[in-house]
Order: sequence, then C-alpha cells, then structure tokens
Amino acid sequence: MSASFRFAVNVTPKAGILDPQGRAVEQSLPHLGVTGVSAIRVGRRVELTVEAVDAAAAEAVVEHLAGELLSNPLIEGYQVEPLGATSSTVAGAVP
Amino acid sequence: MSASFRFAVNVTPKAGILDPQGRAVEQSLPHLGVTGVSAIRVGRRVELTVEAVDAAAAEAVVEHLAGELLSNPLIEGYQVEPLGATSSTVAGAVP
Repeated sequence: MSASFRFAVNVTPKAGILDPQGRAVEQSLPHLGVTGVSAIRVGRRVELTVEAVDAAAAEAVVEHLAGELLSNPLIEGYQVEPLGATSSTVAGAVP
Repeated sequence: MSASFRFAVNVTPKAGILDPQGRAVEQSLPHLGVTGVSAIRVGRRVELTVEAVDAAAAEAVVEHLAGELLSNPLIEGYQVEPLGATSSTVAGAVP
C-alpha cells in the first residue's frame, strides 16, 4: 500500500545574507507609490508530490531533498510544509 | 496607531505552463537515487513586512503588490499567507 503526499519546500535567504532580488523589489516600491513595506526577502517555493507508505516516510524524502538539492545550506534555510495526501493507491489482494 | 504585519507571497507557475526549473530538478533525482517524487513545480516565495493600521489594510497592500509587481499574471498564480503581527508602535497622547 502506498499513497501520494504533496509538500512545499520554502527556501529563504538566511538572516544577514545579501538578497539582491529583495533589494530590487524594495527599490521599485516608490515608483509604484507604495509606502510602509520593508524587510523584503525573496526565496524559492518548490512544490512536489512524493509516493510513500506513510506521511512520515514521505516527509523524510522531502527533508533529504530540501537539504541536498533544493537549498544551498551555506546561505539559505528551508522549511517543509505538508500540503496533505493527494490520493491513495491500494494494492488489493488478488483473489 | 499602526502595527507591523509580516506576510509571505507564494508565486507558482500556473497549471499547464512549462516549468524548466521543475523539470531540471525532476531530471536530477535519478542521479541522487531518489524515486517516487513527481509533479515538481518551482516558484518564488517573497516575505515582507507591512506597516498599516490593521491586518486588513496590510493585506490589501500585499494583494496589490502580489498582483502588480511580484507575479506575472499571464503565467503565474499567487497566494498570500499571513505570518502574523510582528510588533506594534502606538502613538501615545503627549501629556
């Protein structure tokens, strides 16, 4: 028996790390007439589906991927966000 | 009186739109020995702080920015996620 679980991995620049995209957004705000917005940080959001026996096994796969492939641990942090089970495939017994 | 509210804007490619970054991640999985992962979509996550009189006013500013500056409505969708009030500055009456 196995099921599909959907996750999001939110990757954000660590505190103190220069974030050129965030600065670019911040500098464009006056041209849009927007005030009172600050501390803009631009990161990535990766959504993916994992096939596994249960939610814990699926989350372990996502944690592994997030640390090894989806983020650069020197300059980025990440947070795994479960989005729920999407469907189930049950291998029934053959009569 | 005004307060600071922190938000995240999750920008993701619309369904059916080609996502080269997602495909690149998917194609690198076999080299890492990872199986059972599919439907990978890579988007952006923008976190920002808004100074406003209340949470509703702050969210209105974020919605405006998300649609006008942070996403490309032709190919991307977005979702605003409140991260809570971060601090308060109250202009007290001078005695």
